[in-house]
Amino acid sequence: MAAPSTDNTCREEADTTTMERSIRERVPPLLTDLYQFTMAYSYWRAGRHQEPAVFELFFRDNPFGGGFSLFAGLHDCQLFLRSFRFTHEDVEFLRSVLPPATDPAFFEFLRGLDCSGVTLRSVPEGTVVFARVPLMEVAGPLAVVQLLETSLLCLVNYASLVCSNAARFRLAAGPRRKLLELGLRRAQGPDGGLTASRYTHIGGFDLTSNVQAGFLFGIPATGTMAHSFVTSFTSLEEVWPRTLVAVDGDADPVDVISLTKGWLSRVCELLGATPGKIREGELAAFLSYAIAYPHNFLTVIDSYNVGCSGLLNFCAVALTLCELGYKPVGVRLDSGDLCALSVDVRRVFRLCSEHFSIPAFNALIIIGSNNISEESMAELNSKENEIDAVGVGTHLVTCTKQPSLGCVYKLVEVQGRPRMKISEDPEKSTVPGRKAVYRLIDADGHPFLDLLCLAVESPPEAGVALSCYPVVHNSDAVSITPAQVVCLRQEVFATGEVTQPLCSAAETRAKVQSSLQTLHPRHKRLQEPDTYSVAVSEKLHNLVTELCKGSSSDSNFLLAN
Amino acid sequence: MAAPSTDNTCREEADTTTMERSIRERVPPLLTDLYQFTMAYSYWRAGRHQEPAVFELFFRDNPFGGGFSLFAGLHDCQLFLRSFRFTHEDVEFLRSVLPPATDPAFFEFLRGLDCSGVTLRSVPEGTVVFARVPLMEVAGPLAVVQLLETSLLCLVNYASLVCSNAARFRLAAGPRRKLLELGLRRAQGPDGGLTASRYTHIGGFDLTSNVQAGFLFGIPATGTMAHSFVTSFTSLEEVWPRTLVAVDGDADPVDVISLTKGWLSRVCELLGATPGKIREGELAAFLSYAIAYPHNFLTVIDSYNVGCSGLLNFCAVALTLCELGYKPVGVRLDSGDLCALSVDVRRVFRLCSEHFSIPAFNALIIIGSNNISEESMAELNSKENEIDAVGVGTHLVTCTKQPSLGCVYKLVEVQGRPRMKISEDPEKSTVPGRKAVYRLIDADGHPFLDLLCLAVESPPEAGVALSCYPVVHNSDAVSITPAQVVCLRQEVFATGEVTQPLCSAAETRAKVQSSLQTLHPRHKRLQEPDTYSVAVSEKLHNLVTELCKGSSSDSNFLLAN
Repeated sequence: MAAPSTDNTCREEADTTTMERSIRERVPPLLTDLYQFTMAYSYWRAGRHQEPAVFELFFRDNPFGGGFSLFAGLHDCQLFLRSFRFTHEDVEFLRSVLPPATDPAFFEFLRGLDCSGVTLRSVPEGTVVFARVPLMEVAGPLAVVQLLETSLLCLVNYASLVCSNAARFRLAAGPRRKLLELGLRRAQGPDGGLTASRYTHIGGFDLTSNVQAGFLFGIPATGTMAHSFVTSFTSLEEVWPRTLVAVDGDADPVDVISLTKGWLSRVCELLGATPGKIREGELAAFLSYAIAYPHNFLTVIDSYNVGCSGLLNFCAVALTLCELGYKPVGVRLDSGDLCALSVDVRRVFRLCSEHFSIPAFNALIIIGSNNISEESMAELNSKENEIDAVGVGTHLVTCTKQPSLGCVYKLVEVQGRPRMKISEDPEKSTVPGRKAVYRLIDADGHPFLDLLCLAVESPPEAGVALSCYPVVHNSDAVSITPAQVVCLRQEVFATGEVTQPLCSAAETRAKVQSSLQTLHPRHKRLQEPDTYSVAVSEKLHNLVTELCKGSSSDSNFLLAN
Repeated sequence: MAAPSTDNTCREEADTTTMERSIRERVPPLLTDLYQFTMAYSYWRAGRHQEPAVFELFFRDNPFGGGFSLFAGLHDCQLFLRSFRFTHEDVEFLRSVLPPATDPAFFEFLRGLDCSGVTLRSVPEGTVVFARVPLMEVAGPLAVVQLLETSLLCLVNYASLVCSNAARFRLAAGPRRKLLELGLRRAQGPDGGLTASRYTHIGGFDLTSNVQAGFLFGIPATGTMAHSFVTSFTSLEEVWPRTLVAVDGDADPVDVISLTKGWLSRVCELLGATPGKIREGELAAFLSYAIAYPHNFLTVIDSYNVGCSGLLNFCAVALTLCELGYKPVGVRLDSGDLCALSVDVRRVFRLCSEHFSIPAFNALIIIGSNNISEESMAELNSKENEIDAVGVGTHLVTCTKQPSLGCVYKLVEVQGRPRMKISEDPEKSTVPGRKAVYRLIDADGHPFLDLLCLAVESPPEAGVALSCYPVVHNSDAVSITPAQVVCLRQEVFATGEVTQPLCSAAETRAKVQSSLQTLHPRHKRLQEPDTYSVAVSEKLHNLVTELCKGSSSDSNFLLAN
């Protein structure tokens, strides 16, 4: 792959302390909505702040018009919970913004807060998930779990969105083409870029241009040169040193300028090209780069004109390197009709390989990188091209098709009693009660339905028929028989500690691939996928009905007056 | 405005040290593309790293199909430049990712790097700007100014985009309606949320929900309660304390439960409402909040049903507060037909005011906040409604209409000689040479053309006709006479220091308003605006022509062989 990294093996991630510091810096506990504090104060004032409460996090629609999403951001949430504490400075700031009526003792309470009373149950990071399935359950003291809302949403929303987007690009590209994430400069803020690098790698990208993502997450970083490097040179006079030592020859430096000029003549002759249209500055840039990094020679060849200049200059320098025993890496195309250009370039590589008997020219790679969208990625499968690797920036990291996932965080239980928001907009009503979530698998090993039950119900059993209600509005009961049943969530944080090992980016990336593997292709289609079923158990269905009618004791209408 | 902040006066920003630390944490010098380092190494290896070079930053199209953009992110760029330094840990990481061929002395060079040799000339932050006008000029040692590319782009791109988006929402809303930014949970990463809060305030929003934005930038923060607060209550038994002291009455606490029940009866009677449909938990939530923050009573009233429950409960508690001498603030509507609901709510407020002789009910505010887009904001001007303030999240902060601005950073000069990228895609060609940028103003005080000249040219003069070439491809020369000429850029960073005072968010916000004020309405139209003219001087036009032909000595074709 593109120099300097030559494979996509992950390096070690930074140690957990560095990661945790990074989270504390990116997500300080004040990075939240003010109303979390006014609500927490009201709970505290009413003596309700310690009441056990349960929130659920979910999204309402699969992103990008697709049939699935990937769940991501959990690792950051776990570190966030572990480090959640207000500093003296934080509390003093809150004292200055909350209404003067706030009892000073509340600030003492905040000063002592942490997440030791919070339990997080979650779908494993990197799992394929669906709209309306509660992905995380956050249980703990009412005031604390309320305070966590905005931060957890912020950490899950974009991570899951951009990871899902990357997975779609990967599906569009097919399994073999290398995918490079190049989005940092176009990301929504510096951390948008960093988060994108992590979660697009998890979603299926191989390499990133982002050095900090390499540093923090061990993602292999890649990149060689921009057009500015090429255009900064004007003349071969600027090349220095002007010599290179052959890989396994004697130690006498070889004059590469002369050597390259010779190769350029032969290339021009072979291709019938006009030397008069070749840019000298471009040749100087390529030579300078080759002299600096002879093992990593990969250049952008469209700063002027690919056919008349860039490709000829590349071939001349690459042939020089080959003569000295080095293996040039390849080229990047960054404008024009990438497919057509790549075919031309490959033809020239093959011709050179054959004519000059240089087999290394058959291993050269071609990278394409010009405003690639999911659609243009998919087109690579239908149009003739020779592109080995694709660099994607804007459309990947900013998720132009749908730049927000819309996760929400809803209260479902207080003091062991189910809570529900019954909106005039049915889409905005919530499913009450503490739940267990099961993924039902069919006889072919494909998941076919996610079932939400009350936590107190006994789990569905493999091979046993059960009746349930699809969450689609006003659906009738259906009967289904799973071949296997998987409990979808597990406890990942409790008593102030992370209770499942934190997954590295590489581990979660592997999880994504295996989770996507089991999903039936009809749900993975990028256009018009089949809808995956999500249903509630009969007991949960009955509870919803009761609460909507107000007939449950936990949904009192004010009858006494 | 929405409690607890009662106006939109900015607080003090955090001190510069805190801001600079925040930038260092958000934008460490490794948060960049790897190729910046491979290029820097090649320059260093060739002995070219100290050559004086000039880059320009600009975007190619005004965002959102609009006629203008706002320039933002400069403040962060200035702090970034001032603090730009590699730590030992950074350099050791780079040593591990750059190709093994990298000369160890290069890492010593990196260790000693800073921006003391860099000069930044920039359009002032908050200025109305247009596509293809170079907004920043970064001059300094070639290797250093190359290394800055990704970070500067990342800091300007999203800041300018989201600031421009906010300005469009402000234009759509008109000058009087209060605008609240509520986007943190839907932002692209935590810092996307923080950046959005700063730059949407600068672009014209009044308040934010984001506490950290209040802490760092002094932006007034707002917010009272979510639906979860309302649904967490089930019964009036949960209200505690159950008393409140009147504002200027005697100190005897009053039983507000009884008082509220009395008011609720009277409200139901007045409105002919059915008490049996009123949610007791909602009333308990409102009462608890009122007891905690009697001066800041603003509730969300659609957790169940506005007309049958939320509005009645609000009125009862608000009337109780009025009786005790407090001034309730208002309500928030978060679902359904906001316009129609607001009209109903206002009617009830007026009725209560009149019937119970409570003038404070005429001052109650109504906030709307349900997936507001630029279009739905504009609709508020044509549909009957009583919405005083609008809360906007997703569409504002993620810029759903166009989630990336696409700023680029192009080399225009090395060693005093102009550089140019001549792409096969004319859109991707650059305008060479170090420039001066002038804004030409017409006799009515409206800017009508931005003129790019070579830095060495004498500036255009007011009242003197000049000939220039619009940047639209292949345009003929036009003759124009400005009434006034403004030099658009100024030096803001040099010799390692910020040379213009850093502007606070409040100052830049004022600049935005005055800059937008002078722009002719035809360029401000949200749909199909007139295109603002950008042109190059004759001298610059001639230089482009020369370089394209390769006839300039700085654009050598390889003639010798």
